[in-house]
Amino acid sequence: MKKIALLGSTGSIGTQTLDIVRHQPDRFCIVGLSAGSNVDLVIEQAKEFRPALVSLATKELAEQARSYLPEGTRVTYGEEGLIEVAAGTDADTVVTAIIGSRGLPATLAAIQAGKTIGLANKETLVTAGHIVMQRAKERGVSVLPIDSEHSAIYQCLNGERQDDVLGITLTASGGSFRDRTRAELADVTVEDALKHPNWSMGAKITIDSATMVNKGLEVIEAKWLFGLDYDQVSVLIHPESIIHSFVEFRDHSIVAQLGMPDMRVPIQYALTYPERIPTPTERLSLAQIGKLHFREMDYERFPCLRLAFDCGRLGQSAPTVYNAANEVAVARFLNREISFLDIERVLETVVERHHVCDVHDLQTIAEVDEWARGLAATV
Amino acid sequence: MKKIALLGSTGSIGTQTLDIVRHQPDRFCIVGLSAGSNVDLVIEQAKEFRPALVSLATKELAEQARSYLPEGTRVTYGEEGLIEVAAGTDADTVVTAIIGSRGLPATLAAIQAGKTIGLANKETLVTAGHIVMQRAKERGVSVLPIDSEHSAIYQCLNGERQDDVLGITLTASGGSFRDRTRAELADVTVEDALKHPNWSMGAKITIDSATMVNKGLEVIEAKWLFGLDYDQVSVLIHPESIIHSFVEFRDHSIVAQLGMPDMRVPIQYALTYPERIPTPTERLSLAQIGKLHFREMDYERFPCLRLAFDCGRLGQSAPTVYNAANEVAVARFLNREISFLDIERVLETVVERHHVCDVHDLQTIAEVDEWARGLAATV
Repeated sequence: MKKIALLGSTGSIGTQTLDIVRHQPDRFCIVGLSAGSNVDLVIEQAKEFRPALVSLATKELAEQARSYLPEGTRVTYGEEGLIEVAAGTDADTVVTAIIGSRGLPATLAAIQAGKTIGLANKETLVTAGHIVMQRAKERGVSVLPIDSEHSAIYQCLNGERQDDVLGITLTASGGSFRDRTRAELADVTVEDALKHPNWSMGAKITIDSATMVNKGLEVIEAKWLFGLDYDQVSVLIHPESIIHSFVEFRDHSIVAQLGMPDMRVPIQYALTYPERIPTPTERLSLAQIGKLHFREMDYERFPCLRLAFDCGRLGQSAPTVYNAANEVAVARFLNREISFLDIERVLETVVERHHVCDVHDLQTIAEVDEWARGLAATV
Repeated sequence: MKKIALLGSTGSIGTQTLDIVRHQPDRFCIVGLSAGSNVDLVIEQAKEFRPALVSLATKELAEQARSYLPEGTRVTYGEEGLIEVAAGTDADTVVTAIIGSRGLPATLAAIQAGKTIGLANKETLVTAGHIVMQRAKERGVSVLPIDSEHSAIYQCLNGERQDDVLGITLTASGGSFRDRTRAELADVTVEDALKHPNWSMGAKITIDSATMVNKGLEVIEAKWLFGLDYDQVSVLIHPESIIHSFVEFRDHSIVAQLGMPDMRVPIQYALTYPERIPTPTERLSLAQIGKLHFREMDYERFPCLRLAFDCGRLGQSAPTVYNAANEVAVARFLNREISFLDIERVLETVVERHHVCDVHDLQTIAEVDEWARGLAATV
């Protein structure tokens, strides 16, 4: 029986993780859940999965939930509560499905406690990949990717030698607006942006897909997860999202992972690796799909992706700034404060005004992150 | 330095194997070559690669070659000569690139001598898969596939567990006549049939691709190589031959191997496994290719493939008969004795008239093989 603590249980990855657990009750159990403010859903989840510990965003929300939680489930809250769910239970694996760089302290606490990490919180690696991977290595902890692209690469690297890797290619559907010109992007609404053609995902990541920031974050994530140079990471437009990503080896052989777009496959893979077990998902029929399309990434059309490569190559504090500015810009767009194209304007402005500095400790990262958020909120 | 004995050095796989050796002179050397009757080419090859032993089809051909061979290269001939190249040198790996079931005794001799097998002679597994794989297992010898489809599957299975495999899919370009109806096949010429759209291959395999017998042989080969049931092996039409084949796992994740159609990649993989080294081949750009197409196999259009599955499932002597009848039918077509559609008529007739029997020893296999050839030559 694998014991799982789930950070971000009410979000898209969180609920799909619970669906996997629901289908394999003899194999998985939930020992901890953290959520933000969706009290009703987390109560329902606690009743079904009976975790020892639940954490909510604030003391008030925790009080609100307390009397509805099943016997044996303790409730806590805030940053400390999140860390307790990450590191204070007897979980074997911690799934980090919360969004944004606030997942960083909890992820580090889980690593410190020797938990296997199922990583869906890509911002953690973007903002502090050097620290996270170093600590995981020191502690002998596996970091198993849950992003479909990174899970694909992880699967393709099975049994292969790092030295034989020429490079990896992350596929990108192009997001909600892949067939619109830049001129046509000026007036798009929040509702338009939230319609992703292939994947069922949360709001933030759906917007990030439309701006291609998501792919940018994935490029930086991949660099850290797989120990690659940025020159070894490419992005290819593949509208159908059937080939989830691939590895090219130095003999020019390419190994790719494919499937229907369903996050439950990579989620479960992170939970069962190195084994595989059946998933409650649809099988892929290439004959039924008939055609797969590919085209070069257009960095003029998607300048945020180019900016991600630039920030990644700059290194040090630049990726932290890129990510923090984006988090604020997306929130402002979802809040209808700024337009869709303003997201990239905010990003570019904040990155441009930043003086890159060393970020060897969490304190500095937090300061840089805060500075970027402050500026992104006002430009 | 890996020492290689190459059976069938003047054919398509043979010359491409030598091209791989030519590009990696510090890693590979040739200790034995066998050829049929192309004396001029084998002399040239012997001068370049300086093998200890060369074998030709007959005593006359060997005499003809003798004085032109370099110092230190001994010449022999016939079935015994072939077996000496397979088993009588200090080769680490024997590449079996001869065509047809006559490769069987040499392959078994190489296994007996403890050589790693680079298997390009699929008829060997079709006609005696149960014996070959059993002996390889007993002797602790690896059988590494050189067929592009089987190499693809082998690569996709890297680091995976056999129990997790749901099934495999072999891709098929559809051969020279994939866009012709059956009616349009009646009058096709040998020249038409020899134009394969994607792969540069020998005459026999090119005809086998057009009749889809090649895919049928590959299905049976895959059954033995990977220890699968026939229900676990599918065939999919994929005109571009870019996805070389794929494995579906029980979590519904698919892992595929891709590349430009160039046999030198699977040949070299068999020689360097589990490592990979650079190949002198073109890199695949999916963006440049733009689209990949897939469609269901049409078993009405390609009845020889259905017949291969039938013979495979019947087992015992049926695959031997299928293969032997096909070898003769293709030779008769290339010799302009019968028409293209007669190939399948000959196959069906011979299989129909055969009474399936046990084939637990090579003697029985040889008798069944001879019976099928005799009938296939006259119907």
